[in-house]
Amino acid sequence: MISLLRKSFPNAITQTNRVVRCKSKQDKCARNALIILAPGAEEMEFTISADVLRRAKINVTVAGLHGCEPVKCSRSVVIVPDTSLEHVVTRGDYDVLVLPGGLAGNKALMNSSAVGEVLRCQDSKGGLIAAICASPTALAKHGIGRGKSVTSHPDMRPQLMELYCYIDDKTVVQDGNLITSRGPGTTFDFALKITEQLVGVEVAKEVAKAMLWPYKP
Amino acid sequence: MISLLRKSFPNAITQTNRVVRCKSKQDKCARNALIILAPGAEEMEFTISADVLRRAKINVTVAGLHGCEPVKCSRSVVIVPDTSLEHVVTRGDYDVLVLPGGLAGNKALMNSSAVGEVLRCQDSKGGLIAAICASPTALAKHGIGRGKSVTSHPDMRPQLMELYCYIDDKTVVQDGNLITSRGPGTTFDFALKITEQLVGVEVAKEVAKAMLWPYKP
Repeated sequence: MISLLRKSFPNAITQTNRVVRCKSKQDKCARNALIILAPGAEEMEFTISADVLRRAKINVTVAGLHGCEPVKCSRSVVIVPDTSLEHVVTRGDYDVLVLPGGLAGNKALMNSSAVGEVLRCQDSKGGLIAAICASPTALAKHGIGRGKSVTSHPDMRPQLMELYCYIDDKTVVQDGNLITSRGPGTTFDFALKITEQLVGVEVAKEVAKAMLWPYKP
Repeated sequence: MISLLRKSFPNAITQTNRVVRCKSKQDKCARNALIILAPGAEEMEFTISADVLRRAKINVTVAGLHGCEPVKCSRSVVIVPDTSLEHVVTRGDYDVLVLPGGLAGNKALMNSSAVGEVLRCQDSKGGLIAAICASPTALAKHGIGRGKSVTSHPDMRPQLMELYCYIDDKTVVQDGNLITSRGPGTTFDFALKITEQLVGVEVAKEVAKAMLWPYKP
């Protein structure tokens, strides 16, 4: 199947076999994001994050949690990842790791030792980690950022309030290298906060304007 | 490739070969939506529409404009459709047709005689047609709803203002069977307006609440 997908999507699939991202002088300074896509992920949270970051000229790699095969998301949208987490986990040097939510997707993230490994590696070097909706509980499961201020989907509050300083009244919370947010309806602001951190508020403003999003940095 | 995808996603792919949607008493009254997915479509506009409608228990069929193969969207998110437009065009009885935007995606919609056919068929029976961002210009190209009130991405205004009553100051405009909207940042309201029309404002409110979206009917 991969060979067939490669035929149809050479750019998407060849990312499996490359780590080099600075292809030219032009993108020497480009920033890199890794989004981990698990079966059952919330497809709006995934798609808005990937799209907004790419609009900001951030290189986004979409890594399937269990491989390169198409991933069926929470509301049956089927998305083809660029590569597999297994392939990038030991090679990546990402400016941000992004975890979409979705109940089943988040459960898979919580149960994955590879996700734990990549999160702890990113955290140990102070790299940005961004989690939305249910997925802040995957941070808790893997021991990331305990004691910091976070938010999440309100349904996840009970699992987080004793381990973190839980914030109820903001759509996006940043505490150091941790960015968390609440659900599909807050994903534009979540992705724009990541954009702001990686490439600056002016780029975030431009991206928001083109999307007709009322962004307030 | 289709057989391989079928193996991985039996539910998604078998939709290619079925028209029967009322599988049980339970969904006898279910409403049906067709979203046409063209290469270069805006993936946020596609995904938010599909996801919100499915959260409202509306049966959503995602039809690839050029077939069942995975579709590369405007910011390189690759999505696998449920079926092809060719397959559903003569069979469908949909409560709403949804056209996502995206410049290249919209160009493909404009250039497709099959899209023109399915739109005119839907319009002739007074069925809902919903278009967002660039895609209201596809309605213009195929002669749908001229003279009605519409909106679109502001960049498309010049192509629409002489054919329609163009509205600048609303995120979603409904005039009879036509629902139009402006861009990625207005897609939640666009999808909730469709939801409201098909299954009622109370369902739309519930869906919005679960997504943490500040919906104002």
